[in-house]
Amino acid sequence: MKGSANAGKPRFPYSSKVNVIRCVQKLGPINRAAVAQEVHLSIPAVMSITEELLGHGILIPAGRAGSGVGKHPELLDICGDHYRMIGVDIGRTMVRTVITGLDGSVLANEAVQTELIEDPQLFMTRLCDLIIRTVQEARIDQRTIIGACVAMPGLIEQDTGRIVFSPNFGWQDVPMQEWLNSRLPYQTIVENANRAQARWEIRPGRNNENLTVFCAGLGFGIGAALIQDGRIYYGSSGTSGEFGHITVCREHGRRCSCGNTGCLESMASGSAIAEQGRELARAGRAPVLTAMCRGEFDRIDAKLVFDAARMGDEACGLVVSSAAEYTGIALATSINMLDPDEIYLCGGLMKNGPEFLEEIKRYTRQRQMHFAGRHVVIREGSQDDWHVAKGATLMILDNGWKFRALSFLY
Amino acid sequence: MKGSANAGKPRFPYSSKVNVIRCVQKLGPINRAAVAQEVHLSIPAVMSITEELLGHGILIPAGRAGSGVGKHPELLDICGDHYRMIGVDIGRTMVRTVITGLDGSVLANEAVQTELIEDPQLFMTRLCDLIIRTVQEARIDQRTIIGACVAMPGLIEQDTGRIVFSPNFGWQDVPMQEWLNSRLPYQTIVENANRAQARWEIRPGRNNENLTVFCAGLGFGIGAALIQDGRIYYGSSGTSGEFGHITVCREHGRRCSCGNTGCLESMASGSAIAEQGRELARAGRAPVLTAMCRGEFDRIDAKLVFDAARMGDEACGLVVSSAAEYTGIALATSINMLDPDEIYLCGGLMKNGPEFLEEIKRYTRQRQMHFAGRHVVIREGSQDDWHVAKGATLMILDNGWKFRALSFLY
Repeated sequence: MKGSANAGKPRFPYSSKVNVIRCVQKLGPINRAAVAQEVHLSIPAVMSITEELLGHGILIPAGRAGSGVGKHPELLDICGDHYRMIGVDIGRTMVRTVITGLDGSVLANEAVQTELIEDPQLFMTRLCDLIIRTVQEARIDQRTIIGACVAMPGLIEQDTGRIVFSPNFGWQDVPMQEWLNSRLPYQTIVENANRAQARWEIRPGRNNENLTVFCAGLGFGIGAALIQDGRIYYGSSGTSGEFGHITVCREHGRRCSCGNTGCLESMASGSAIAEQGRELARAGRAPVLTAMCRGEFDRIDAKLVFDAARMGDEACGLVVSSAAEYTGIALATSINMLDPDEIYLCGGLMKNGPEFLEEIKRYTRQRQMHFAGRHVVIREGSQDDWHVAKGATLMILDNGWKFRALSFLY
Repeated sequence: MKGSANAGKPRFPYSSKVNVIRCVQKLGPINRAAVAQEVHLSIPAVMSITEELLGHGILIPAGRAGSGVGKHPELLDICGDHYRMIGVDIGRTMVRTVITGLDGSVLANEAVQTELIEDPQLFMTRLCDLIIRTVQEARIDQRTIIGACVAMPGLIEQDTGRIVFSPNFGWQDVPMQEWLNSRLPYQTIVENANRAQARWEIRPGRNNENLTVFCAGLGFGIGAALIQDGRIYYGSSGTSGEFGHITVCREHGRRCSCGNTGCLESMASGSAIAEQGRELARAGRAPVLTAMCRGEFDRIDAKLVFDAARMGDEACGLVVSSAAEYTGIALATSINMLDPDEIYLCGGLMKNGPEFLEEIKRYTRQRQMHFAGRHVVIREGSQDDWHVAKGATLMILDNGWKFRALSFLY
């Protein structure tokens, strides 16, 4: 505790036991004395905690360090077999499920197309079937599963996992977590997808868990998450990180799915780029794009607009460039305001070649205040299709106190 | 400490002794057991710390609590006489100096017009004279002075107090802290004025020191500071909070003092409002304003534009309304991104009547994402002319490890 200024606010309810697990996830195989130093506990305290964690099958002995004479201290590592976690990434185009061990090993994964979003309850039923099928087909002992974390875009109430508002899905006030818990045999939490994505960017071994990390997802929609000192920053209402809905165009802004106009998402997201491409093609102003989609305008997606721009379609080039500029303006805003250590850009739009990232960086520098944010590093985030689902599995231990299977940690 | 995830990063180097002082500043008179509970220390630890702080004259006995039979515990309070602090607010129009006791009592203050900013070194010399004169005229024992905190707008390097860039003063790379320390008999730190202002908004007794507080200064320039858990958030380069330099107008944005175009400061600050008023008057498009300044266009300042707008000058009304709109857009951005508990709006522009605040709030709500930031409260900040200087005095204890006179606290 940091004293009177923070008294009474359990903002970061990580227990010492969780800190020990996180330490071994990061540095294992590791000996007890090194753990004690890392987590600022006495050696006897660490002895007692590791004893308990060995008993529960969370840790395993991993040999002894060093060579030569003398007794070398026993090393400990994370056990991958005793605790499994389910992570789900509900994207606008694909739903991905992954099952991992506490050591990060992937035991199973499954992806299906996103369907039936117009009926959240039916969607939820299918999702439960998918999750149960994934566990069964991988022949995983149900008793080893701690629970599931389902990540999706939108404003999600932190404690109840209720979808308050998801513009991309057209959902409002959907008690998703409650529904899932009433049908699934696994305890389930619902989280925001950008937070799961950001969690993956500070996964064990990245050595950035002491930094301020801003992670933006540029895909069908646009969102972000802020991480400070290894923890997700939720904000007073749990709605921080709505980077996609900051106004970047006051006057001739496009209508956004959120109901506003001129939001970054309405000007620079994958859906906005595709929509602008379709408008141009229909108006006969994008000849290359029209040829590429063979006149089937409904087939135009953001990728096709990027491809047409690369093939010399000037109007599509302007759409892409304007998306990069608005994203740069919004990132410069984030830098001016937050001055983070690292910025990660993730999401489908980042798969359209390195030029897009370079153009975003150029506009960011142009709009960033001179001399401000000098230490900020902008990086491409993970390109792995599974990183949101895998980040979601990491959020289960972060929220360990919500899971019965982990109650002994608290 | 919070364990491995944060190991080794002394981001908040408040010592237990400082926590005890902050606790007594907030809750005193208070007994030792209550202090122990507040700061999460054992009673013997608090006994030992309070003994030392009594010896140093930081705390004083303040009687005993309760009535009736039995021995009541001794109360402790902050002593105002033994430790004094100098706070300086360098604004674009006035320089204010205040001397306070550790108990917050004001012992002296002095204000002079801001002059000679074109010559930072001469400016600094005059500032030293002002500070020394203020101490002398108040007949304060020099030995009781811990040091000084000088707050001014701009990007300021956290450890060296070097002014990296202050657009409003036209300063770049000015080693102000080094200069002041070579001339003043008091140890001095240089800080950003918005941070001092924000520090005043979470002063002892406000009970908001556990919250996330965003504090914006709307004056000659525009800036902000972010406070989390009672501490100022500096960012990776120390340049967080540059709210005035986020781009709110991409296309026909005005030139900003920072060199960019379309920054909030260039569209909505006091200087921008005054400049737009002068342009309108010169162009013959602001009849009421022209009459009010009697044709002396150079006399037009932001206050006169507000007054003219209230008297029915339509063009001036649009300038004020557009400033409110751009400020609302930028505040909505802050809410979407940060979802703070409280937002304080401070600075000279807030003195132009409650309608301006209401208009800003209306535009903020319009641009804020639906359902996001539902718990955010927007408040008018302190209207006291001395709050930046007083906030600066509070930053001395916050940075206590930098002051020789407080070395016994670490």
